[in-house]
Amino acid sequence: MDIHRAGRPTRPVPPEWFTGTVWQDPIVEAPAPARLRALRVTFAPGARTAWHTHPLGQTLHVVVGIGLIGLRGAAPRLIRPGDTVWIPPGEEHWHGATPDTMMSHVAMQEALDGQTADWLEHVSDDDYTRAPADD
Amino acid sequence: MDIHRAGRPTRPVPPEWFTGTVWQDPIVEAPAPARLRALRVTFAPGARTAWHTHPLGQTLHVVVGIGLIGLRGAAPRLIRPGDTVWIPPGEEHWHGATPDTMMSHVAMQEALDGQTADWLEHVSDDDYTRAPADD
Repeated sequence: MDIHRAGRPTRPVPPEWFTGTVWQDPIVEAPAPARLRALRVTFAPGARTAWHTHPLGQTLHVVVGIGLIGLRGAAPRLIRPGDTVWIPPGEEHWHGATPDTMMSHVAMQEALDGQTADWLEHVSDDDYTRAPADD
Repeated sequence: MDIHRAGRPTRPVPPEWFTGTVWQDPIVEAPAPARLRALRVTFAPGARTAWHTHPLGQTLHVVVGIGLIGLRGAAPRLIRPGDTVWIPPGEEHWHGATPDTMMSHVAMQEALDGQTADWLEHVSDDDYTRAPADD
């Protein structure tokens, strides 16, 4: 058993895969044969990931704030604390804060051949500021 | 993409695998080829799991309260918000609240042949009330 006490350093994210100010806090990188990679990601207002996919999908669980998740050719959707998003393998998407509110989520994905994401282009301001759908 | 909005019903746990009052809130059951099963588990003071193992290990991330995690032949350890515990495949363990404080954690495990845990006997009061180690 390994206990990782609260207080591990918060890390900045690679700027080529994100827009704006985004912070990562580690949760786990489970050793093989397990595949789980989990972390908390905090997006300042206006910040978001680039477009990307996951080889074995991704689960997002919002813990604080209000954010957005976007798919190709559709209005982004608002996500709030307690909401969970499942993105299946290969689906191109992005996620982040809204323009006016920060958002923090736990992100859980499984590594395939050491890879948890395939990164694409940044999300344009036009795509990001499209009026969100809600429900 | 599936968005599960906050507000899905909280479920009681099977009493044969737990002692005391314990509640589960669903996060995700990722479809194959993914394996992730995640949920939030909330233990009232005095409540704990039975002894058990996980075929592909387990990650616990404490979100609220102060709890305990125990291994065979050792004093239980205190766990607090922001702490993460990694339990490797096959390691016999239990987790829960302290006698005086509730605790809620996110539990993440991977299914192997549809199975995420192998359950053993309940945790005795002697094992549960052993003075915890801290660090």
